Amino acid sequence: MINYDAFLSRAAEHMKGSAIRKMGTVLAQGRDIISFAPGYPAPQTFAWTEFQEIARELLSGSDGGVLQYGPTRGFPPLLDAIAGIMASRGAPTAPDRLLVTTGSQQGLDLVARVLLDPGDVVLVELPTYTGAITAFRNVQADMIGIPQEADGIDLDALDTTFDRLRREQRTVRFLYVVPNFQNPTGLLIGAEKRRRLLAWADRRNLLIVEDDPYRDLYFEDSATEADVRPIKADDSGGRVIYLSSFSKTLAPGFRVAWIDAPAPLAAKLELAKQAEDLCTGGLDQRIVYEACRRGVLDRQIPILRAHYQEKRDVMVAALRRELPGQAHWPDPRGGFFIWAALNPLIDSDEMIPRAVEHGVIYVSGEAFFVDGGGAHIIRLSFSAPTPPRIDEGVARLAAAIREELNATALSRAAAAKSQARR
Amino acid sequence: MINYDAFLSRAAEHMKGSAIRKMGTVLAQGRDIISFAPGYPAPQTFAWTEFQEIARELLSGSDGGVLQYGPTRGFPPLLDAIAGIMASRGAPTAPDRLLVTTGSQQGLDLVARVLLDPGDVVLVELPTYTGAITAFRNVQADMIGIPQEADGIDLDALDTTFDRLRREQRTVRFLYVVPNFQNPTGLLIGAEKRRRLLAWADRRNLLIVEDDPYRDLYFEDSATEADVRPIKADDSGGRVIYLSSFSKTLAPGFRVAWIDAPAPLAAKLELAKQAEDLCTGGLDQRIVYEACRRGVLDRQIPILRAHYQEKRDVMVAALRRELPGQAHWPDPRGGFFIWAALNPLIDSDEMIPRAVEHGVIYVSGEAFFVDGGGAHIIRLSFSAPTPPRIDEGVARLAAAIREELNATALSRAAAAKSQARR
Repeated sequence: MINYDAFLSRAAEHMKGSAIRKMGTVLAQGRDIISFAPGYPAPQTFAWTEFQEIARELLSGSDGGVLQYGPTRGFPPLLDAIAGIMASRGAPTAPDRLLVTTGSQQGLDLVARVLLDPGDVVLVELPTYTGAITAFRNVQADMIGIPQEADGIDLDALDTTFDRLRREQRTVRFLYVVPNFQNPTGLLIGAEKRRRLLAWADRRNLLIVEDDPYRDLYFEDSATEADVRPIKADDSGGRVIYLSSFSKTLAPGFRVAWIDAPAPLAAKLELAKQAEDLCTGGLDQRIVYEACRRGVLDRQIPILRAHYQEKRDVMVAALRRELPGQAHWPDPRGGFFIWAALNPLIDSDEMIPRAVEHGVIYVSGEAFFVDGGGAHIIRLSFSAPTPPRIDEGVARLAAAIREELNATALSRAAAAKSQARR
Repeated sequence: MINYDAFLSRAAEHMKGSAIRKMGTVLAQGRDIISFAPGYPAPQTFAWTEFQEIARELLSGSDGGVLQYGPTRGFPPLLDAIAGIMASRGAPTAPDRLLVTTGSQQGLDLVARVLLDPGDVVLVELPTYTGAITAFRNVQADMIGIPQEADGIDLDALDTTFDRLRREQRTVRFLYVVPNFQNPTGLLIGAEKRRRLLAWADRRNLLIVEDDPYRDLYFEDSATEADVRPIKADDSGGRVIYLSSFSKTLAPGFRVAWIDAPAPLAAKLELAKQAEDLCTGGLDQRIVYEACRRGVLDRQIPILRAHYQEKRDVMVAALRRELPGQAHWPDPRGGFFIWAALNPLIDSDEMIPRAVEHGVIYVSGEAFFVDGGGAHIIRLSFSAPTPPRIDEGVARLAAAIREELNATALSRAAAAKSQARR
């Protein structure tokens, strides 16, 4: 019998599964479970008819390149379309700064490989996106968390932490932020704070990795284009590596996203991608390109805003009805998530089996904290289920929470009683 | 001005571009260049009509999962189809050993990340596949080359090298081989040698990484199913990590390949993939699955064998005609490549600009040698160009070689003359 552990790299020894992906496995068991777990976009919003027509034309065989290997940087017309999108976001760019990635997850992984050595420090928000945690952990980086305020990351805490790390002679490579409708909190970094953050990075000579998958999905009742202006838009110094994606606006199944980075870094990211997968799928890139060119993307965005805004309304109303005064969350102004703090007696990770019993799942808060916090918080994704399923799911969740609290109270009472007897 | 070099990881400092991909850039300049460089399959052989029909059905919108995020392991019906393929290759497997990868390049990269620490040794064939070199170098591994004989890797040299490395207290993690129609040499490892290789790995407690993209493309005039039997087929001990792909049989643009590894390693490879791209493209995986299920793949394979065999014949005849006695190569019995040794006076990398001038490109041999060898060898890919273009390309190549030899002779003569004068 071979001892495979003896063959593993140090990186592999530390690899852990994602809590979100684990929930996917629960789902795949096929019971009637309402999932508030993965941040899946709603497939009924996808532009199926247009994709079908585009794929029909692309697969006619008239252009062999559609199914051939392609350039590592990406399909050139798609790169041009992405440059157009960047300009429309207030952040004009150049071809030597762009790279198509196989989903933003690959973007995060490439950034990790190109910028991080084992033991290097990445500053992240508390809480932050689990996929980033995974990518950074896989290159054996240390993540240090910075608390958030209502308008995003706490700049004083950031500077104090940086100072301390510098005194400890740690190598801090970059700050990772999700400024728009953050996964998991749904928070926005305020406009003024974005400017101060960039000035801070300049002063401290640090890079910023800005991960921006949700910016198009702001809710028109409470946010505007100005609120989601990328930090990158004001990055005259070349401090910001910007990631965005078509996964939340067209469909995740295409695995098409991009990085906009200072040219010398983009060149290194390209080399890292060459070794990772040579190129992103040719058919996928062309479908996405055609969806841009034919205006499908532009037509989708307002539809998606309205769609997810309605679902947020349904979930907020259901939470208020089913858990009055028992859950607290910042009302999301865009994106896919409600970040709900429950009674501090609850350990949301331990509650999962009970939630599954009731036919509902979520992601427990601690998956998003690099400091072990968040035990009583849950991330609820309202993006995929239909409104009636959201209502039903929140009712199930409320029942699970009530049971859990009763069980906790009972076990506490029992513990107190046995204590009193001694 | 930011000094980006100061932000790079050690891995990034050592990243290099692939010679094959560089040739892709030459091609993209759009001049009339006949490319024998990248090992591109011939797009006119792709099953366009079937893919078009399959995509039309998949994109009807009736199954939202087609464009949704999917399991990291892969689309379950595709995993079943792959298990069937493995059984047909004499290597039955189990679901917990399989992982779909975004091309075999991702497979190589995942293997590197899960098994290699900086400074670890990988044993590779001399020459070996550049994509593997890139993936192993990107985790800062050391590659030590083992010469090949007519029936593949030299087992005595392998054992001697291993002994030496052990004496030097180096950590040798695995041996990487491409046993069928190796890229770049086109060689096959003989059946007896495959068995001895496996026994050797057992004795030395080493893993074998078997990379097998070309096995279906054997030429029926000189090879049979028995010749391409995977090493994995006799791997009762669980020493072999097997990689294969649909890129050469269906199309590379789908980026769908797979790994079959011992279950504990497959679990780690899955975690590494989770951080790299979450999952391989959903539409791509389903098109590939449907192509398997509907018999498209089975119908394609004999067509491809005949197609590439004919092109090999054309290229071999052209080389004999245009470069009589001036180039030597093992006749390929399958795959995409002719590995041609030229006059030792020629440096094939230096000759590239002259070849481009003549309107033809290849990959220079040294790109495939981890020990700096191969300067007078070229890899010619006959897979993509049409037969008339192969004829024309070889004529252009022969002209470039003649010129290069004349120039070399002239400069030698001049050097000798100036030497004589002193």
